[in-house]
Amino acid sequence: MSELFVDLLSINDLGDDQIARVLDRADSFLAANRAGERARTLDGRIVFNLFYENSTRTLMSFATAAHRLGASVVTLPVEQSSVKKGETLRDTAHTLNAMRPDALVVRHGDNQAPAVVAGIMDCPVLNAGDGTNEHPTQALLDAATMRAHFGKLDGLKVAIVGDIRHSRVAHSNALLLSRLGAEVRLAGPPMLMPDDRDGAFSVEDAIADADVVMMLRVQRERLEEDLGDAPGEYLARYGLTRDRFATAAPNAVVMHPGPMNRGVEIESAVADDPDRSLIGLQVEYGVAVRMACLELLAG
Amino acid sequence: MSELFVDLLSINDLGDDQIARVLDRADSFLAANRAGERARTLDGRIVFNLFYENSTRTLMSFATAAHRLGASVVTLPVEQSSVKKGETLRDTAHTLNAMRPDALVVRHGDNQAPAVVAGIMDCPVLNAGDGTNEHPTQALLDAATMRAHFGKLDGLKVAIVGDIRHSRVAHSNALLLSRLGAEVRLAGPPMLMPDDRDGAFSVEDAIADADVVMMLRVQRERLEEDLGDAPGEYLARYGLTRDRFATAAPNAVVMHPGPMNRGVEIESAVADDPDRSLIGLQVEYGVAVRMACLELLAG
Amino acid sequence: MSELFVDLLSINDLGDDQIARVLDRADSFLAANRAGERARTLDGRIVFNLFYENSTRTLMSFATAAHRLGASVVTLPVEQSSVKKGETLRDTAHTLNAMRPDALVVRHGDNQAPAVVAGIMDCPVLNAGDGTNEHPTQALLDAATMRAHFGKLDGLKVAIVGDIRHSRVAHSNALLLSRLGAEVRLAGPPMLMPDDRDGAFSVEDAIADADVVMMLRVQRERLEEDLGDAPGEYLARYGLTRDRFATAAPNAVVMHPGPMNRGVEIESAVADDPDRSLIGLQVEYGVAVRMACLELLAG
Repeated sequence: MSELFVDLLSINDLGDDQIARVLDRADSFLAANRAGERARTLDGRIVFNLFYENSTRTLMSFATAAHRLGASVVTLPVEQSSVKKGETLRDTAHTLNAMRPDALVVRHGDNQAPAVVAGIMDCPVLNAGDGTNEHPTQALLDAATMRAHFGKLDGLKVAIVGDIRHSRVAHSNALLLSRLGAEVRLAGPPMLMPDDRDGAFSVEDAIADADVVMMLRVQRERLEEDLGDAPGEYLARYGLTRDRFATAAPNAVVMHPGPMNRGVEIESAVADDPDRSLIGLQVEYGVAVRMACLELLAG
Repeated sequence: MSELFVDLLSINDLGDDQIARVLDRADSFLAANRAGERARTLDGRIVFNLFYENSTRTLMSFATAAHRLGASVVTLPVEQSSVKKGETLRDTAHTLNAMRPDALVVRHGDNQAPAVVAGIMDCPVLNAGDGTNEHPTQALLDAATMRAHFGKLDGLKVAIVGDIRHSRVAHSNALLLSRLGAEVRLAGPPMLMPDDRDGAFSVEDAIADADVVMMLRVQRERLEEDLGDAPGEYLARYGLTRDRFATAAPNAVVMHPGPMNRGVEIESAVADDPDRSLIGLQVEYGVAVRMACLELLAG
Repeated sequence: MSELFVDLLSINDLGDDQIARVLDRADSFLAANRAGERARTLDGRIVFNLFYENSTRTLMSFATAAHRLGASVVTLPVEQSSVKKGETLRDTAHTLNAMRPDALVVRHGDNQAPAVVAGIMDCPVLNAGDGTNEHPTQALLDAATMRAHFGKLDGLKVAIVGDIRHSRVAHSNALLLSRLGAEVRLAGPPMLMPDDRDGAFSVEDAIADADVVMMLRVQRERLEEDLGDAPGEYLARYGLTRDRFATAAPNAVVMHPGPMNRGVEIESAVADDPDRSLIGLQVEYGVAVRMACLELLAG
């Protein structure tokens, strides 16, 4: 790992070698986790979890990853913290830095907040999602999942469908998968597409012949405010129905970063198809990829 | 432990041998905890705590038990979780399962929710209380406490008094103590008794000559809505006053799963009698019994 | 450490020898933490964190300190606990005691609540702040910070400025620093000074020629209700501006227990002066001092 890889804020922080190392190490950790083996490479280290936004899977995934490496985890209860007393993000970061954690994981509603924190912390900072900007470990786990299933990423056609405009998952995935040789097709309701429509597809065109269909969660708030659609209407117009999924490549798979809105962006029959859904494998690679990132940065 | 003992959802999951093993192992752990000794039989394992209902003692008791065995604990903050985003219990369980914890402890307001979770998880699932159904580790710790105090369970007369209709504690205790040879007498306000009155006693008859009087917490909501009683009225009519306790067996003891409503279901003079109250010992056996259950299931 | 030092509730619990031992041990831990070394002197021990008031830094500081010593931490989620169900503090303490933690850290809004808890617990109890009474580990970390910077405490002139009346930080610091030979000058808005004005200074007189200026956080509520001042007015009248700080001793330093209200009690130019601000060092000593206290009490 090069000296430059001190934080993981954006996919662009990673060189090609570093991406390959994370994905390879994640494969090893996945196998070790399945075998019940434990790495202790972060034994005695302390990881801080600083989540300004609600989270189940990412928070627990990072905590599980840290524990599997032997590290301790201290989670900042933002809801009952100094943040409520008006402390600035910079002052919180200075305070946490003086406690000398070995790594800090941060999720924040503002784009670039993790970069601000990283500018202050001496330890590695991992971006667990910032506003509409990036969610790099999600993209890495998605890439690891696809690579494990297909044996390669180069040449894969990947449709990412939903609220592209606001999705940090879509953004990080587009950056990463393109670099790894996949063809990324972004699609969604016109109101939820970015102003820059480079690479924008209709939902039908994106899914047609795709190897991977990655459905994004639609915020119910956006559904009501921006779209005025009932959930069923959204599914019919933009969601992954069985019929729509049938237009993808014969061995196409479905992915979703979760949590799913069943009957909104995805039909249950598709989500639960054991031969076609990689959703569980994504969560499993979530722990493995975060173990790889924590080890490489804090080890 | 038989192969069938993969989860602890109900007292009925346990064979007689298994009950005996849990109680014996809990005795060993209690002694070890008092001596400051540490078992490390779950060293490196990860226990997930998934509490959909508020809890102090059960949550901390399971966490303490896991730590004493050397395991790490990851607690899902349900209040700030995907549950709030409308994720189904099944999807949450699939997600948590893919993170491969070594055991999952779940409390939920719906009867059978732990069974639903256990049907999905590959790891052992421990029911920490589900709706009005069961709370098996509470019954096991109550049995361990009584056995430690009286040296036996067979033939003990146990009055369980309060909101029997809605009490998972009463239900699990009735199942367990009956199997272990105790005579269980259920009593409470008529509106808070189950429709099936088998084994139902008046409060006076239940307590008379009893060896153990187990008082249940009355929810203040029920007090107001169902009973229309002021707290003091409840105590006078159904609670454990000194006078009522004097009708029990000469060496009778009082138990309570906590938290207590002093002056409602129990008079302080009774709760605080050091010679007659086993309430502290119940909490101590809570940790020991949960250590035994975690070790036997996840070890 | 004498047998009497079983709890840390007040600075007055500590003998002079004990204070010296805590400060010396904290120096060792600070150096070890910087070097990335780990003590494991509390390996396998369990520390309970019982915080009835919101906290970021103190909660995380104690958790980090415990982890660095190898202990596990169980945090009681007071917001979702039995406390909400009306359980008394005494009953909660009896319950926690029966779980046999190795140390309990408690913060509470009521003066003497930690003393009540300590009267029940068999393990050492550390007061992490009680009402307007004391915050002894804060005073110890402040003393350790000053001693590290100046090489001594004897003869230092220390101005403590702000809401003296309600400040447990000021109270504990006044007790400790006086014993260690420093001259403590208390100053603040007249309405926020104690009725007993012994040692009370005007803000100007307190700061003049002081070696240390410790600014206290002003609660925004008090600002509005008691003072009727806009934030900027408070700064002008009682806060640490650059001009006011210029009247202190030539090598004077600024301290603050955090979280800061920038532009209220302190001007950013002062808070951020790398040569004059010890605020980061305070946080760092916070972990080191709490390691020393936990080790000496629970080790």
